[in-house]
Amino acid sequence: MRFELTILGSSSALPTSERFPTAHVLNVHERFFLIDCGEGTQVQIRRLRIPLSRIHHIFISHLHGDHYYGLPGLIASMDLLGRRHPLSIYGPPDLERLVMDFSHLNEALKYELRFHALDPEQPLLILDHEVVDVWALPLKHKIKTHGFLFREKPGLPHIRKEVIDELGLSIRDIQWIKSGNDWISPEGEQHTNQSLTLPASNPRTYAYMSDTRFMPEAAAWVAGADLLYHEATYDHAHRKRAWATGHSTAHEAAELARLAQVKKLVIGHFSARFKTTDGLLSEAREVFSETVAACDGLKIPIGSSEPTLL
Amino acid sequence: MRFELTILGSSSALPTSERFPTAHVLNVHERFFLIDCGEGTQVQIRRLRIPLSRIHHIFISHLHGDHYYGLPGLIASMDLLGRRHPLSIYGPPDLERLVMDFSHLNEALKYELRFHALDPEQPLLILDHEVVDVWALPLKHKIKTHGFLFREKPGLPHIRKEVIDELGLSIRDIQWIKSGNDWISPEGEQHTNQSLTLPASNPRTYAYMSDTRFMPEAAAWVAGADLLYHEATYDHAHRKRAWATGHSTAHEAAELARLAQVKKLVIGHFSARFKTTDGLLSEAREVFSETVAACDGLKIPIGSSEPTLL
Repeated sequence: MRFELTILGSSSALPTSERFPTAHVLNVHERFFLIDCGEGTQVQIRRLRIPLSRIHHIFISHLHGDHYYGLPGLIASMDLLGRRHPLSIYGPPDLERLVMDFSHLNEALKYELRFHALDPEQPLLILDHEVVDVWALPLKHKIKTHGFLFREKPGLPHIRKEVIDELGLSIRDIQWIKSGNDWISPEGEQHTNQSLTLPASNPRTYAYMSDTRFMPEAAAWVAGADLLYHEATYDHAHRKRAWATGHSTAHEAAELARLAQVKKLVIGHFSARFKTTDGLLSEAREVFSETVAACDGLKIPIGSSEPTLL
Repeated sequence: MRFELTILGSSSALPTSERFPTAHVLNVHERFFLIDCGEGTQVQIRRLRIPLSRIHHIFISHLHGDHYYGLPGLIASMDLLGRRHPLSIYGPPDLERLVMDFSHLNEALKYELRFHALDPEQPLLILDHEVVDVWALPLKHKIKTHGFLFREKPGLPHIRKEVIDELGLSIRDIQWIKSGNDWISPEGEQHTNQSLTLPASNPRTYAYMSDTRFMPEAAAWVAGADLLYHEATYDHAHRKRAWATGHSTAHEAAELARLAQVKKLVIGHFSARFKTTDGLLSEAREVFSETVAACDGLKIPIGSSEPTLL
């Protein structure tokens, strides 16, 4: 079952000819969750062949343009493409009014937009979805901003491969056993659930730390995440500027990854002043070696890549 | 002196992986005029190396998203790049409120935005600029929409090349003669202005017919234009749909070019249903042979390409 991140945009406020502003898509078992939506996100979705019709949830971290200017165009295009399924958008309380007013779409839309206002001061579960739980995390930026934590729902146990043939299990039998039951063969032979199954895979997590100052206190929220995205707008030489503008350095992003003992770190939201990310990447890797630098179009499979089991 | 159009976006409402929504840039003597501003225009400007800091006038035809959703991002980026020069935006009366509200930029901007509300029912001169006059043309679309006509300011006469050396004219002499005066040599020999000059080049014109139904009455407004852009969202087979949605077919675009006896036609704003523009182009060329199809990045020098004369 896939749990994979695609970076659609990796610039900070000023896009470049190679980097669109921030947007990520998380694929959880072929359900697609859009995280932030800078200008041009719909173009990137199309180019990277993300199925637009399978995005039903969008999460907007805050009201700086590079994180939401792409929403009106995306909403309009979904309509033009014949969408009928409701679309849920989680974001700051003002977002609904701003988008609906600017987009001039209110009466024309042929599907339902459901805005969910986010304003928690503490981590809060904002979506309890079939395949994933989503938490909003209050960050420390110039304006109210939230990060998001995606935690895969625990799966069912796996059936031991060898017993399927051995006992001649049917699909129905397998479902019965995966639901936690013991199994009795047609001959009356009893098998405990434990003898037939392997534990479910560990639920995977993706933590998205949008624009923020370094927040060591966030380490507890994202502890052990399989993948942490953390903004790294600046390098260590610009740490004062980072602090003044409510941003982080590559060093600080890596420091949070280290504190939280995550498995992997991806840094992004790079200031256009850096012509290459080499410096930022090596700065981060000095603190946390399992770091990669975001670029538009990058796909990162998250967590264990166990073969799919029944 | 350059008079050149660059197509930044050529899709209709739904962008594709190859076509951004509508935006054109007209270069008049190295002054750059932006016409419409769909989502992603700033990215295209950067990719096509248009000097952003030399755009001081933006014209927005109407309030459908594919013509203005790119404005907030463009305005914000100009600010981030240190702009101080005022920026004039000509468009529908509601545009200022929509953009300023949505963009969340009002207090932060370090340069002046000057919105000019357009609402004329007849062609109206809206900008009398050093190098060009700009007229708004009322079109027939589903909502109030304007096209724009750019007419180069008449130039000064050219000095006959051979007389410069023959008479030993200085730069100051040349300026004196170009301003319409006769010239007397140090030896007292008199030369009439007419004997020294060739007439100024014909002012060049670019007519931009944004989203509209076929309007034969517009032929008089754009008569003789060096370049006419006309939307061609549909082909002839979809002519009823074109009419119903306030759009034109390739055939109709060409028919206007023929009626107005323009020099060249460029069609654009293609519906995403057309995988190639071949059919639209041949449909138009049957009526008006001097037709080209817009594509993103296309540059079209407009009018006579006379060598630069003094």
